[in-house]
Amino acid sequence: MRKIHARSTVAAAIALAAIAVAPGAAWAQQAPMMDKPAMAAPMAPMMADRAKLLTTPGVFGNFSTYKIRPDYYKLSAAERKGAAAEVLAAVDKHKDKIIVDAYLTRGFETHSDYFLRVHSADMAATQAFLIDFRATRFGMYSDVTENLVGITKALNYITKDKSMDLNAGLSGASYTGDAPRYAIMIPVKKDAAWWNMSDEQRLKEMEIHTQPTLQYLVNVKRKLYHSTGIDDTDFITYFETNDLGAFNNLLISLARVPENKHHVRWGSPTVLGTIQTFENVVKSLSN
Amino acid sequence: MRKIHARSTVAAAIALAAIAVAPGAAWAQQAPMMDKPAMAAPMAPMMADRAKLLTTPGVFGNFSTYKIRPDYYKLSAAERKGAAAEVLAAVDKHKDKIIVDAYLTRGFETHSDYFLRVHSADMAATQAFLIDFRATRFGMYSDVTENLVGITKALNYITKDKSMDLNAGLSGASYTGDAPRYAIMIPVKKDAAWWNMSDEQRLKEMEIHTQPTLQYLVNVKRKLYHSTGIDDTDFITYFETNDLGAFNNLLISLARVPENKHHVRWGSPTVLGTIQTFENVVKSLSN
Amino acid sequence: MRKIHARSTVAAAIALAAIAVAPGAAWAQQAPMMDKPAMAAPMAPMMADRAKLLTTPGVFGNFSTYKIRPDYYKLSAAERKGAAAEVLAAVDKHKDKIIVDAYLTRGFETHSDYFLRVHSADMAATQAFLIDFRATRFGMYSDVTENLVGITKALNYITKDKSMDLNAGLSGASYTGDAPRYAIMIPVKKDAAWWNMSDEQRLKEMEIHTQPTLQYLVNVKRKLYHSTGIDDTDFITYFETNDLGAFNNLLISLARVPENKHHVRWGSPTVLGTIQTFENVVKSLSN
Amino acid sequence: MRKIHARSTVAAAIALAAIAVAPGAAWAQQAPMMDKPAMAAPMAPMMADRAKLLTTPGVFGNFSTYKIRPDYYKLSAAERKGAAAEVLAAVDKHKDKIIVDAYLTRGFETHSDYFLRVHSADMAATQAFLIDFRATRFGMYSDVTENLVGITKALNYITKDKSMDLNAGLSGASYTGDAPRYAIMIPVKKDAAWWNMSDEQRLKEMEIHTQPTLQYLVNVKRKLYHSTGIDDTDFITYFETNDLGAFNNLLISLARVPENKHHVRWGSPTVLGTIQTFENVVKSLSN
Amino acid sequence: MRKIHARSTVAAAIALAAIAVAPGAAWAQQAPMMDKPAMAAPMAPMMADRAKLLTTPGVFGNFSTYKIRPDYYKLSAAERKGAAAEVLAAVDKHKDKIIVDAYLTRGFETHSDYFLRVHSADMAATQAFLIDFRATRFGMYSDVTENLVGITKALNYITKDKSMDLNAGLSGASYTGDAPRYAIMIPVKKDAAWWNMSDEQRLKEMEIHTQPTLQYLVNVKRKLYHSTGIDDTDFITYFETNDLGAFNNLLISLARVPENKHHVRWGSPTVLGTIQTFENVVKSLSN
Repeated sequence: MRKIHARSTVAAAIALAAIAVAPGAAWAQQAPMMDKPAMAAPMAPMMADRAKLLTTPGVFGNFSTYKIRPDYYKLSAAERKGAAAEVLAAVDKHKDKIIVDAYLTRGFETHSDYFLRVHSADMAATQAFLIDFRATRFGMYSDVTENLVGITKALNYITKDKSMDLNAGLSGASYTGDAPRYAIMIPVKKDAAWWNMSDEQRLKEMEIHTQPTLQYLVNVKRKLYHSTGIDDTDFITYFETNDLGAFNNLLISLARVPENKHHVRWGSPTVLGTIQTFENVVKSLSN
Repeated sequence: MRKIHARSTVAAAIALAAIAVAPGAAWAQQAPMMDKPAMAAPMAPMMADRAKLLTTPGVFGNFSTYKIRPDYYKLSAAERKGAAAEVLAAVDKHKDKIIVDAYLTRGFETHSDYFLRVHSADMAATQAFLIDFRATRFGMYSDVTENLVGITKALNYITKDKSMDLNAGLSGASYTGDAPRYAIMIPVKKDAAWWNMSDEQRLKEMEIHTQPTLQYLVNVKRKLYHSTGIDDTDFITYFETNDLGAFNNLLISLARVPENKHHVRWGSPTVLGTIQTFENVVKSLSN
Repeated sequence: MRKIHARSTVAAAIALAAIAVAPGAAWAQQAPMMDKPAMAAPMAPMMADRAKLLTTPGVFGNFSTYKIRPDYYKLSAAERKGAAAEVLAAVDKHKDKIIVDAYLTRGFETHSDYFLRVHSADMAATQAFLIDFRATRFGMYSDVTENLVGITKALNYITKDKSMDLNAGLSGASYTGDAPRYAIMIPVKKDAAWWNMSDEQRLKEMEIHTQPTLQYLVNVKRKLYHSTGIDDTDFITYFETNDLGAFNNLLISLARVPENKHHVRWGSPTVLGTIQTFENVVKSLSN
Repeated sequence: MRKIHARSTVAAAIALAAIAVAPGAAWAQQAPMMDKPAMAAPMAPMMADRAKLLTTPGVFGNFSTYKIRPDYYKLSAAERKGAAAEVLAAVDKHKDKIIVDAYLTRGFETHSDYFLRVHSADMAATQAFLIDFRATRFGMYSDVTENLVGITKALNYITKDKSMDLNAGLSGASYTGDAPRYAIMIPVKKDAAWWNMSDEQRLKEMEIHTQPTLQYLVNVKRKLYHSTGIDDTDFITYFETNDLGAFNNLLISLARVPENKHHVRWGSPTVLGTIQTFENVVKSLSN
Repeated sequence: MRKIHARSTVAAAIALAAIAVAPGAAWAQQAPMMDKPAMAAPMAPMMADRAKLLTTPGVFGNFSTYKIRPDYYKLSAAERKGAAAEVLAAVDKHKDKIIVDAYLTRGFETHSDYFLRVHSADMAATQAFLIDFRATRFGMYSDVTENLVGITKALNYITKDKSMDLNAGLSGASYTGDAPRYAIMIPVKKDAAWWNMSDEQRLKEMEIHTQPTLQYLVNVKRKLYHSTGIDDTDFITYFETNDLGAFNNLLISLARVPENKHHVRWGSPTVLGTIQTFENVVKSLSN
């Protein structure tokens, strides 16, 4: 069975509320190879194009958090030992349609031990993989505790046309920190007053929102998914960083802009995990 | 045992808040036959009239979501294999009174693996079927995680009399997309201020609500159920589409009208599933 | 063992917020005999006087909803078969103090399979019965999912003195529909602004509330319980009808009056069930 | 093993929001002996002084509600029969430090079968007892479903100095009803606007609050605990009565004063139980 | 296996909302040695520096609450007896990176039996320890019921520069009470209006907040963690005291300042426990 690289080559989606990076953007290129799995690069003709899925608009992102049921630990050690291989086989089976990133949350989160981020150009393909994953021993002993789905879109506020200077600011800086070890997923829902603003008003709010975030481009990566109507949130914001203190400061700066008055959901849950290979996640939780 | 066709021939209920399509409306006619089950058309004298149940006012719609308990997967594979036949037998037993549509939600939803939509002219008949369904092995290992009931009504805002142009707009377009693979169920509850508006004010709000939705008639189908007093929601809105990006845009356009300020519930849960035969749902979840 | 008549002879409590019908009111008289249990009329000297308990002020009403645990269905069919007799014996043991009505909610409700309404002049007698009920096999496998207690009171707003015409309207119409097959229980809690109104203001609001309900006296029966301080609700409203469409319209008309602005709880849960004998409820859920 | 008297000799804490009765107050004296356990008066030198604990400021009150897990009823009848003795032994072991009152809530409450009220001059002593109680068979099969802790204080609003007439009113009446059979526990939390009022404003609100309650001194007993910062409530209000109708009227009168506008929690849960010996509670729930 | 000293040498973080004590502050020095474990001082070269971790900015604090599952008590007494040693071994394994404090909450809290506070300069090290802890028998039978993470920062409001007198007040008093036996953990989240204030406004609010707290410096110790963006709270406030009455008064004084109007979360949960060695916590809950 081939190994997968369930690691994060996150495209450089930039501003917080409505961003998707164009294919080939600088950040996608320099995505860090934090842990170096002993395997060939994923160039087999049938594999989903990771770089493309992470940078193209119209791609579906699926975030699911899981809690392992206590009876998993009543299985024999041998049975648990085989869990990772089974999971990787399920990933392998679907590797032409989907890519999976895995994160370890035990010790950080109340309601989960790990979470998955699945990308695909076709939601039904994502479902097919997750059904197979849930049929593995590890998946069978995992309870889903949150599941959010979203879709990527082209940048729609801080574009070259609408907000040239800020757009330049966003393009002018790139992540220079150590390879991120942490990922954070934060759902965002806005109130009716926000959505009833004119486009101009909302653009202005997003400019005020974007300004203080520029300085954090060097140590926090971001990606955005849109969910209105397909889930009980408007956005799923996803971050990677190696500097949680800087991340805390970034989010405080976002709390300090007027846009914050329109949040009816910001977190709930905020999910923090360490970025891991899927194999490591399964093994860490199978001891 | 005869097979059922748990597929969706959704009538063309049009505007979001208070619509039921007249029998014989164009869209009902052209309802797509997404998956072609190998069976005769449902014309047996004792079968519920699907087209009529989906287009007549005064029909009860029952939405229930289910999560399979983990011990289901401790049954032998043989036992799980027989599950679908048992379920179809239960459907067959009640086929003169009810029709059932089934949807697979595993991988999309936190709180469910599948959901059912049952129509009947008599709520007690719906209950009788669901009690029998719950007595099958598959039903017995399923926990109900949401249950919403509603009733269909004749169109009451955007009628020919009250709002001629918009009514024409609604009638003038029809679904032209690929057969929908996705269904979305969203409960809606309005605040006291909404209900205390005059009929004229509410009509005006519904006109503003309807205008931006016209363009989505070609790729999103809709149906509405009324629930005030019979459940903890005012409406159950049901959609089918094959284009989740368009659906996301439709719902954003509905977020942008003043009516949105009167939502005390809009989702919670938003339930997204793939449209399947009941047989496929049971089999997909029984591996 | 003697059979019980766990059926509903609901007294005609009329307006929604503060009503208790005088003994001997027309509706109490014509209470429908929906299901005709094969038993003698309940005239044994030691039995609680059903008509009196349902029409007198100062009687306690106890509503409890139950969900059957899955392991009930792992008992042998024989064991489940004996469940009804045991339950009826428990009712029989307490028949001099309490009356019980039972409702089947499976298929309609997320959080219950059935609910009970117990009346007694003494809350401790109600508790004694329910403890015995929970000690039966059926009760033992049932989880309580909601429990609300209230007390009946004499009419206090739309009285002959305070609001003569409306009082006449309430008295002038009576239920003429088919025997109700459905019951609905809706808890109601009002905000501090409501309770801080003067008596005159509240009377005025209740008059506006009552007016549009008059037309539904012919197809919806109502009864009211007061709960402030003895439970986390101010009122428990209870309805019986055979026409759920009319009931939906009645509740929409109540949403449209200003009183609705003072609801901090209206439902949550709204519980809908079919009216059954207790025996039928147990048997339907024991297959 | 010595029996305990887990009965309620409730001190006469009077007004609802900030009251603790001085030692030796009239009501404490005449506390009813509702159930007469066959035991000597608790005068042994090593026993906690019940009257003192119930009337002194600075005493900790601990309210915990419990739900018995279903598997308790799978123990043999013999095992369950021994449960009460074990519980009473645990009480006896700690009788020099704590007093325990027990209440039966099954049949009244969704989330509990019984609740305990423990008083002690030292919170750690309360914890030590409850840990031992949870190690008994009965405690081991009980899930804690609510736990609130508070501390008693000297009266701080309606004092002789600040509000002479009302203070006289409070002192001038005493409980004359039958021995209370019911206890009610209601947590209360006030909003920031309440706490930001001046002392004078709050005193005025408490006077308005106190006035309508005077008439209920004859049939409702009250006691108050302060919890700000040590639990998620500001107050725990505790009542005993034999007249639930009067109690309902008392609480309605408290809903009708402006103070009610500052409640962010008033109940949730409201816990109603019958006053019992601890032994009876265990036995009633062990059949 | 070496014993650990899971006791609290809490640094003197002073004002409630934004404080971290400088290394070497007086209070850190005089941290009480409440229980004297029979072991050498933790000076081994490979041990995490407790004093430093508790006083340096940029340290991660992890609070997790646990509830023991009932089946733990179905293990043999012998198996439970070995639980403490296993837990201490896990602590020992990670002692060069993390320090752990343990608290017993059974009898005080609904949702937990104990809680842990883990400090580390590296969040991943905290995770590594907690994963190992959860793999011990005791950890395996514990359900996580809350998990909050935060980071310490340098004081940012009541500094010498910004608010000299108050800063002097904070520095001029120190804890003089008995060794604290109780710890309280209270999460705090502020609203958008708070975060949108100017720095000057917020400083002013914090001065008003700080003033009434000065008198409690002698009997309540405090420490603050920042969580915006890394968890669903803005702050985690942690207290130690031996005088719960004084603590209640302190928190009432904080309820009485305008800052309280900006709390969207203050508690939920408020967690109260007794300060214990980790060994004692495990043993107390393993009988």
